[in-house]
Amino acid sequence: MSFDLVLFGGTGDLAWRKLMPALFQAFRHGTLPEGGRIIGVARDDLTDAQYRALIQTRFDSVEGAKRPNAEEFARFADLLQFVRMDLSRPDDYARLAARLGEREADTVVMYVATAPALFGTTCEQIAAAGLNWPNTRIVLEKPLGHDLASNRAINAIVCRAFSERQVFRIDHYLGKPSVQNLFALRFGNALFEPLWRRETIANIQITIAEDLGVEKRGAFYETTGTLRDMVQNHALQLLCAIGMEPPINAHADAIRDEKLKVLRSLAPWTPQTLSQHVVRGQYAAGNMGGVAVPGYRDEAGVNPNSRTETFVALRTEIANWRWAGVPFYIRTGKRLASRDAHIEVNFRPTPHAIFKAPLGAANRLVINLQPKDGLELHLLAQGQDNRQNTRTSAQSLAPVQLDLDFDTRFGAERVGAYERLLLDVIDGRLNLFVRSDEQEEAWRWVEPILDFWQGDPQGPRPYAAGTWGPSAASAMIARDGYCWSEEC
Amino acid sequence: MSFDLVLFGGTGDLAWRKLMPALFQAFRHGTLPEGGRIIGVARDDLTDAQYRALIQTRFDSVEGAKRPNAEEFARFADLLQFVRMDLSRPDDYARLAARLGEREADTVVMYVATAPALFGTTCEQIAAAGLNWPNTRIVLEKPLGHDLASNRAINAIVCRAFSERQVFRIDHYLGKPSVQNLFALRFGNALFEPLWRRETIANIQITIAEDLGVEKRGAFYETTGTLRDMVQNHALQLLCAIGMEPPINAHADAIRDEKLKVLRSLAPWTPQTLSQHVVRGQYAAGNMGGVAVPGYRDEAGVNPNSRTETFVALRTEIANWRWAGVPFYIRTGKRLASRDAHIEVNFRPTPHAIFKAPLGAANRLVINLQPKDGLELHLLAQGQDNRQNTRTSAQSLAPVQLDLDFDTRFGAERVGAYERLLLDVIDGRLNLFVRSDEQEEAWRWVEPILDFWQGDPQGPRPYAAGTWGPSAASAMIARDGYCWSEEC
Repeated sequence: MSFDLVLFGGTGDLAWRKLMPALFQAFRHGTLPEGGRIIGVARDDLTDAQYRALIQTRFDSVEGAKRPNAEEFARFADLLQFVRMDLSRPDDYARLAARLGEREADTVVMYVATAPALFGTTCEQIAAAGLNWPNTRIVLEKPLGHDLASNRAINAIVCRAFSERQVFRIDHYLGKPSVQNLFALRFGNALFEPLWRRETIANIQITIAEDLGVEKRGAFYETTGTLRDMVQNHALQLLCAIGMEPPINAHADAIRDEKLKVLRSLAPWTPQTLSQHVVRGQYAAGNMGGVAVPGYRDEAGVNPNSRTETFVALRTEIANWRWAGVPFYIRTGKRLASRDAHIEVNFRPTPHAIFKAPLGAANRLVINLQPKDGLELHLLAQGQDNRQNTRTSAQSLAPVQLDLDFDTRFGAERVGAYERLLLDVIDGRLNLFVRSDEQEEAWRWVEPILDFWQGDPQGPRPYAAGTWGPSAASAMIARDGYCWSEEC
Repeated sequence: MSFDLVLFGGTGDLAWRKLMPALFQAFRHGTLPEGGRIIGVARDDLTDAQYRALIQTRFDSVEGAKRPNAEEFARFADLLQFVRMDLSRPDDYARLAARLGEREADTVVMYVATAPALFGTTCEQIAAAGLNWPNTRIVLEKPLGHDLASNRAINAIVCRAFSERQVFRIDHYLGKPSVQNLFALRFGNALFEPLWRRETIANIQITIAEDLGVEKRGAFYETTGTLRDMVQNHALQLLCAIGMEPPINAHADAIRDEKLKVLRSLAPWTPQTLSQHVVRGQYAAGNMGGVAVPGYRDEAGVNPNSRTETFVALRTEIANWRWAGVPFYIRTGKRLASRDAHIEVNFRPTPHAIFKAPLGAANRLVINLQPKDGLELHLLAQGQDNRQNTRTSAQSLAPVQLDLDFDTRFGAERVGAYERLLLDVIDGRLNLFVRSDEQEEAWRWVEPILDFWQGDPQGPRPYAAGTWGPSAASAMIARDGYCWSEEC
């Protein structure tokens, strides 16, 4: 199966950091279909050879086993070509058409890894140039809009040029092995579904903590903020994966239908919940592992009076029979105490305790997404084996943990998120991509928060870099009688 | 709290192999209450010093870390005393009374580790000598009778001399950490109870496989057999622990009431189930790890035409709301392929499969009792990470295992079964001991099997030593559509 993969933004940040390494890994692993071309597109004036040389410098900076040797890179570089284009100039698309017309590839992937402002134009011009063949697939990165209206506008353009089954909206969290495993665990095992409901589960916590600040992306972040950057997409997709009903099959639309139902079931915001169940924060100067770091307002490109949030914690519910009354907490932010993404399913305590258990001990399933992929099942076992207590606590319990480290189980050389998703695009598997109606529904749900913040004089609460965010986030969850995992 | 532990059979096999080492371990671990005396009783003519010297020779044969050094043994030996007694001679009990009368211990434990024929007499004589004080506890080993009538007869004698709360009937399987953990897992965690029922569980298998033959106990085994030696007690106790309803509290009688209910709920035998759901076997000559071993009929003390079984496999059901229709399989025998005792909870497959799973793959919880204590939870996870299959089997599942090795978790120096049980006797905790009504109910249930076998011309089926027993055991479980774990 031959493919042409056109990389709009072929010299850009995403191509440089994520896509080229992922394509190379797939090539090295022998999973990239043979007979492919990877056609970088950018305004730079480069020959194919110059583009290959440029990409080579990217790999030269790689250290360790992932660095290709010369022979290996040379074989990979054979796939690379370059077409110079200004994406706003319709005429330039003829040049791309000519290159694609040199042969008839089975699949043509158009990966729009450009600045978001160019997404619409690029899609329109691809269509105008007649490149929206039935075998064309278009890949779009976030952010697709900054609110419901702008998201709809972009999706409208995309839908005019392509049918939904041609559109691959990337949420790279869905490419993470742990997220795919969450589907496998829930729907491939008989053990979890009977437990996966309000009768057994007390609350669910989704944490995506970054230790980095905004780095060089201050200007971008100023107009985006954490709610748009992390909650509307990644966090809500995780919430869907953990909360959805079993799909009728494993096909893309069956899964996406169920995710959509979750988004539609999210408790609507009220003035009361907006003020009590959403906490926004902004990092102040602080200390990361012994190193002093500046606050957000002192970062390059950031307004010194910025009201942009770098932290969000919120509480919601899925209003359906399975989940009614079970709080779902989302927490994500920059410059937090550690880089740590995980989902924590906290089970209710035993309805009737006949043994002495440590204070607050209860069953917990943790799905780790970052820095490592894995599962932890926290149980209570007989605690008598503590010698000191042999005689007095024969009936007491002690916490134990059953672990599954996916790296150990499946080998550390695993399929990365972008590698997985790129192969899925080439193969035409939409399961791990976001449908337009999901995206719109997520925007519909976050928009009241954006509106509320606009009118809220308080602004984001400062928190010291290197902490777990503003204390209001702890107070919010404490009102339900729960705590964030690191506080329990 | 001071105690006197009287060890009837103080120079016998059980004292030698199990009790002295267990007492020493408790002493070393500092869990044996201070101010104790361990009074060996036997017909031998020994002084206290000679008894200590004899016991020392026992520890001299121990290798590694468990061997006491001289100073350590000397401190332990201070606890040891000896009283010469012929247990059938009433006069001799006066000697014991005198020794006990030297002081008033808080607790007096009478451990009857003698030949079974002496159990009744010893209990009667203890009472006749007036030694059945309210603070006396009596410990009885198996076998307590060889059928329901003889069991009742012994229990009647015991009950005339002691109240039930003074009687500690040992089933050392209940002292195993994994069995105690089974109670902790089931009733200390909210995760398992919702799954622990007919709707979720397909079948439960209890395997107690020994690799040894009858060794020097051929004459004893001839009149006993596997059903009496292993099924009536250990296997049924495990079945009770896995099948019982949650007790109202963790006190001994609450637990024993629930175990009794399980025994009373066991499906009564019919001519049909007796012939189809019970398989008896007898090992023939075979090969254990490359070494030829004789068959049972060639062992010392065994009738060359013996019809005694060395293997039993059976299928039963617990006829109640929780378990109706779920087969419980018990399998135990000598000279099997390996030393391996475990309980396997086999869950039903997912009611609706949306992923490709390996043939026969399903969830399984394994409670390992021997040779190691631990838990294994068998799940299915995303199998895509097998590189070769990345493109073709994104939706296939692969088996993974969550392990909990109790030795690793709690340290290898753990409380052994006899150590645990001896401390429980001294402390007066009856939880892990068998009440007379449980024992009688178990005999009531196995007796029809004994009767059936008596009239059954076929006799036990031969199996080669080193195998998993007669093939009829496999056929029996196969008729339900299941298989023993090592065959699946």
